[in-house]
Amino acid sequence: MAADAAPALLYLPTLPAPGGRVALAAEDSHYVARVCRARVGESVEGTDGSGRRALLRLIEVRDGVTVEVESVADEPRGRRAWVLCGAPEGERADWLVEKLAELGIERFVPVDCSRAAWRLAAGRKARWERLAIAALRQSRRTRLLTVDEPAPLERALAALPETRSRWLADASGAVPVGPTAVSELSVVLVGPSPGLDEREREAVAAAGFRSLRLAEARLRTETAALAWAALWSSGSG
Amino acid sequence: MAADAAPALLYLPTLPAPGGRVALAAEDSHYVARVCRARVGESVEGTDGSGRRALLRLIEVRDGVTVEVESVADEPRGRRAWVLCGAPEGERADWLVEKLAELGIERFVPVDCSRAAWRLAAGRKARWERLAIAALRQSRRTRLLTVDEPAPLERALAALPETRSRWLADASGAVPVGPTAVSELSVVLVGPSPGLDEREREAVAAAGFRSLRLAEARLRTETAALAWAALWSSGSG
Repeated sequence: MAADAAPALLYLPTLPAPGGRVALAAEDSHYVARVCRARVGESVEGTDGSGRRALLRLIEVRDGVTVEVESVADEPRGRRAWVLCGAPEGERADWLVEKLAELGIERFVPVDCSRAAWRLAAGRKARWERLAIAALRQSRRTRLLTVDEPAPLERALAALPETRSRWLADASGAVPVGPTAVSELSVVLVGPSPGLDEREREAVAAAGFRSLRLAEARLRTETAALAWAALWSSGSG
Repeated sequence: MAADAAPALLYLPTLPAPGGRVALAAEDSHYVARVCRARVGESVEGTDGSGRRALLRLIEVRDGVTVEVESVADEPRGRRAWVLCGAPEGERADWLVEKLAELGIERFVPVDCSRAAWRLAAGRKARWERLAIAALRQSRRTRLLTVDEPAPLERALAALPETRSRWLADASGAVPVGPTAVSELSVVLVGPSPGLDEREREAVAAAGFRSLRLAEARLRTETAALAWAALWSSGSG
């Protein structure tokens, strides 16, 4: 059965097993009932953001919408990417988080560096999580971008999983190499707008990061993060 | 002589020949005198956005700053790229224009399609031009992004220069091919958020555009435009 009653993927933080029913959140109810004008008996797709794609049948469509889970499929994880990112200038990170989620990045790790630390206004992380959910819905991805709390660079480096694919965005670096192996984790580190200091550059090199030049001119922090994510997403990163 | 009194490139719409003097605009005067605290006799670099890079000596540094042109070098044009872009949702184009300028795109062509037209608020194009100038300064590029007025898709297609490198961003397209030849113009077309209609797709195919899949999920209009620009900028597009 085609699930074409709604073009976006619904996000259900808790996804029941097949046969179970769940009331959609207010925003999703509005989207299904008012925006898509879906009807009882039609189907939509949803995910819990952990790689599961569910076929959902509309049981009740009023101000609130209730769905019944028809089936759930686990999607293979595929290639994975983390973006470690120093603080950009101003409020430039909202758009970045949204775009990283659209491009399928697994984890966004804001890193505090000696020359620039993240200063998150109250509610900023919650806002990023909402943007990541909206991007998941829009791009119909089943894996939700994880947004970390800002962490000192050293701690973020120490917490990285094993992977040989570690890149430092660097205007003086080498050009990109070929695509990474499927299912390997790729990690990029983008320095904050004032750059990394000497000690940090040494720590990053010691952690196995190789320099990568993303353009023939220097890029803003958030542009470099996005450019790398686009390269990675296309299979070139 | 190193021109290190200011990290950003100055933008001088009219660049005199060597020996000529020019008073900087208020914003650039503030930047040089207050932000960079540069002094008389020090040097900065500037451009008129047409590929010329000038070495400028500071002659007077007060509230207004006057510079004398020491030398001017023409930079080779290199690879070129145009982005034809349908209307995204909401106000998402400002960030896009800034990022395209940072990534070195030559021309941004907003295209009106049957399912979505650009509705530019008063002053929006002037704002885009300011963002393009800011990105040129920041990225130290000497060629300014040209921002076109919105044009109907058919007219934009008819106005394209000769080039075999024409791409349609398409979630169902093929994967990227290799880098384009140096100095060849690459063009991408990204449809508006509701997509192209059948007749438009045929016109685009007839104009020699080949489908290009930028990610394994669908991307928003502005994300696709940016992802392509990043690929192109890295030499992979």
